[in-house]
Amino acid sequence: MRGAQALVGSLAGAGVDVCFMNPGTSEMHFVQALDDVPEMRGVLALFEGVATGAADAYARIAGKPAAVLLHLGPGLGNGLANLHNARRAGTPLLCVVGAHATQHVRHDAPLESDITSVARTVSGWVHTSGDVRDVADDAMRAVAATSERGGQVATLVLPADVSWSEGGAPAPPRRATAPEPPDASRVAAAASAVAGSGSVLLLGGPALTAKGMDAAGRIAAATGARLLVETFPRCWETGAGRPRVDKLGYFAEQALAQLEGASSLVLAGARSPVSFFGYPGVPGDLVPDGCAVVTLADAPSDAAAALDELAAAVAPDAVADLAPHDAPAPAPGPLDVRSLCAAVAATLPDDAIVVDESLTAAAVLGPALQTAAPHTQLALTGGAIGQGPPAALGAAIAAPDRPVVAVQADGSALYTFQALWTQAREQLDVTTVLINNSAYAILRVELTRTGAGEAAHSGRAGRMLDLSDPTPDFVSLATGLGVPARRVTTTEELLDALRWAHDEPGPHLIEAIVPALG
Amino acid sequence: MRGAQALVGSLAGAGVDVCFMNPGTSEMHFVQALDDVPEMRGVLALFEGVATGAADAYARIAGKPAAVLLHLGPGLGNGLANLHNARRAGTPLLCVVGAHATQHVRHDAPLESDITSVARTVSGWVHTSGDVRDVADDAMRAVAATSERGGQVATLVLPADVSWSEGGAPAPPRRATAPEPPDASRVAAAASAVAGSGSVLLLGGPALTAKGMDAAGRIAAATGARLLVETFPRCWETGAGRPRVDKLGYFAEQALAQLEGASSLVLAGARSPVSFFGYPGVPGDLVPDGCAVVTLADAPSDAAAALDELAAAVAPDAVADLAPHDAPAPAPGPLDVRSLCAAVAATLPDDAIVVDESLTAAAVLGPALQTAAPHTQLALTGGAIGQGPPAALGAAIAAPDRPVVAVQADGSALYTFQALWTQAREQLDVTTVLINNSAYAILRVELTRTGAGEAAHSGRAGRMLDLSDPTPDFVSLATGLGVPARRVTTTEELLDALRWAHDEPGPHLIEAIVPALG
Repeated sequence: MRGAQALVGSLAGAGVDVCFMNPGTSEMHFVQALDDVPEMRGVLALFEGVATGAADAYARIAGKPAAVLLHLGPGLGNGLANLHNARRAGTPLLCVVGAHATQHVRHDAPLESDITSVARTVSGWVHTSGDVRDVADDAMRAVAATSERGGQVATLVLPADVSWSEGGAPAPPRRATAPEPPDASRVAAAASAVAGSGSVLLLGGPALTAKGMDAAGRIAAATGARLLVETFPRCWETGAGRPRVDKLGYFAEQALAQLEGASSLVLAGARSPVSFFGYPGVPGDLVPDGCAVVTLADAPSDAAAALDELAAAVAPDAVADLAPHDAPAPAPGPLDVRSLCAAVAATLPDDAIVVDESLTAAAVLGPALQTAAPHTQLALTGGAIGQGPPAALGAAIAAPDRPVVAVQADGSALYTFQALWTQAREQLDVTTVLINNSAYAILRVELTRTGAGEAAHSGRAGRMLDLSDPTPDFVSLATGLGVPARRVTTTEELLDALRWAHDEPGPHLIEAIVPALG
Repeated sequence: MRGAQALVGSLAGAGVDVCFMNPGTSEMHFVQALDDVPEMRGVLALFEGVATGAADAYARIAGKPAAVLLHLGPGLGNGLANLHNARRAGTPLLCVVGAHATQHVRHDAPLESDITSVARTVSGWVHTSGDVRDVADDAMRAVAATSERGGQVATLVLPADVSWSEGGAPAPPRRATAPEPPDASRVAAAASAVAGSGSVLLLGGPALTAKGMDAAGRIAAATGARLLVETFPRCWETGAGRPRVDKLGYFAEQALAQLEGASSLVLAGARSPVSFFGYPGVPGDLVPDGCAVVTLADAPSDAAAALDELAAAVAPDAVADLAPHDAPAPAPGPLDVRSLCAAVAATLPDDAIVVDESLTAAAVLGPALQTAAPHTQLALTGGAIGQGPPAALGAAIAAPDRPVVAVQADGSALYTFQALWTQAREQLDVTTVLINNSAYAILRVELTRTGAGEAAHSGRAGRMLDLSDPTPDFVSLATGLGVPARRVTTTEELLDALRWAHDEPGPHLIEAIVPALG
């Protein structure tokens, strides 16, 4: 048995049975092994950033890792931005990077580069397989490593000769690292904190399951603690029937206003809040002076279980205040961000997965979705844009029976738009609502904040943030990749297009033309 | 004066007056400085790999570095593949990576990552600017470093506070490192080698200028030495009026056949040939047994000058055998790779720049171009695909009066297709001939070579190399980014479209539908 066959077979046996891939010559024996291991599903991406972004979202929804297969250092580089997002999400993800045959390295051939140095910047575990006899077990160690520290990227570098040589043998799965159980002293400390007035409970990461949200809702009802969700949740159960919770604002001044007056901040699966970027004269640490920070559960812990224990302690009989299903009809007429978000909320199918890479629109989308049908939200955890189209793809592979709605900013979409081709090939139920405001609108806000003022919209600087010359035509781009698409400019057209997209099988894109905010 | 103003002004003063950029929040003050320094031309790319690929080609044509501006670690990751190509080309390139403000690093905000570890894998020089008073001088050190070791990437990490703080001062340019002059003992050794029978002169890198090619032609005429050009030349003056030289074949067996019987191999700016990939049972070192390898000039040397000295020594009165301008009319009827390449050659404008990312078609394109109008060829030096569309853009910015013809494989184009938008915005004279064979055809060849046989075209493995389900529609994709496009299926249509593209200002794309080779 060749190494690649042993590797692919062992992965499938361990439940890692989806591989998002963009292979090259050094990965040909891995690809060939797909014919021998029908349990492994290969999903082709036209660009590595699509593969890594899809694997990130797959694991967030499926609760188990997918594999990605990348081609040497440049392939890893192309996939790095979405691996960064996966690292920040604490996503279990197995990254297999094909490399030159061991005996070929000495020739420093054109594609040779320092793969491991790049991989270490996003991975908690990196290993180069050295012998065909070990490769399947190396892969099992890698899969086990993906569960450590609350979930991480594990990178296995796979030399071509280890892949092609005979002498491989399947290896059994290794035990995954379970999340740490709740810590009684932390639960007690959190109980004291929420019992006081002015307490804020910040929810994030693994706290955002149905169980965690339910517990948080009961704690809030019993104690008066305010609930907030981290700005970019990795996987959040929300909408009607869940506690109504705002996200922490993106800009430091918004977050500071939300946290003002808090006497204690209890962290459940969330990190202590910091500003996304540093600005002159603005604090990076967003915790108000005098506010005590109490960690109920951090990354390697089962934050939802900790919330459940906290609820049992402080809110045994409480009934949470849950959001109604009440998504108001959007205002008719020419679209703006407000009516767009309202239309998405009003038409959201039950049990949908919402991929939010809406950037400037997020502050409007979030509140609109609070009373939409119950759904799961995935956000851009690491700030590396170009996550939305691949994430929609990966989520749809993980949950083929759930509709996926991607609310997508235009500039970000263009980083990894190739994902739409795979959405078409795999006939996934993804509806992309593409917000075309012809600008890097978030950067216009940022350029204005530098004091540039009007220059943000004109001049040589402003031109670097402008996407209107020419304006990308997303209907052409989507249909060019095999995804049916429509352009809409009014609420009525958008609602009509959303019905079309939700009713017809397969992927669709709706290009919504809106004026830029601000 | 803010750091960014001092930096941008000093770069422009040093002749680095083009910056390909995809900025984010941490780069806003650099962007803002474009309004203060009109000598700096900012060119916006929709994806970082476009910016880095463009900067690589710009420098190959302009003979001086461009800058790129990238956004933190993920932006560097997105640009890494084409920086890898630049590294392999020995391209002088200034990579500026914006980073979090110095005092913000401690917060480990979502976009924080290990930038320098990634940068070191492609850069010969890496430095993080630590103070606004130093930033302009740091940039001048970086620009000087781009000329070292024959040309390299220099990466300056630019914290946002260094950019935004007052206290910057312009810095004068530093002296560039000139290429090493020819080494007399190496010239003498090469003279002995080419005087013997069975000598091969392998030309590469900086040898491929008009001067170097002319000298090589005279050496061959006088000594009978055979000439070959490295497989992926960074910048090659070729076509009619230049010596007719084949490229070394891509596959090891092709190269071994070309080198068979060589008694000596004289390297002029080229590395000793190695197989691009390792294969079971195939040697990685392509130098035949018993063949002496003589280095006339390696990377930091002026290989063209060395060839000139060698010609003066061994061929003082020789007249080179130059290729005629004789590009035969292509066969009419349905297109195939042969008629496509013949049509490109027959219609090639004088003094064009040809960007060759044609992959499987390259073995046909190369010979066809030998007798086309004189032109400059740029190739995929590092094997990281997705170089063609950005390279065409960068070459056109460097040489606004020269037509650029990009012969482009379909799968590779989809890595960095966003480059077409910048071609449209800047109204560049780029004609992209997109070879659509609906497959990763080169990988089908490779999968067949593994022994997979028919599986390369069918089955679960073969599907990972297939781009026909759905077939990307490159006319839609190009027009969606603002580039006029036509689809052609016959030689007559292609010739017609080439005339249209060459005659009309601005960029064009011609999607040529061809059957896959083999």
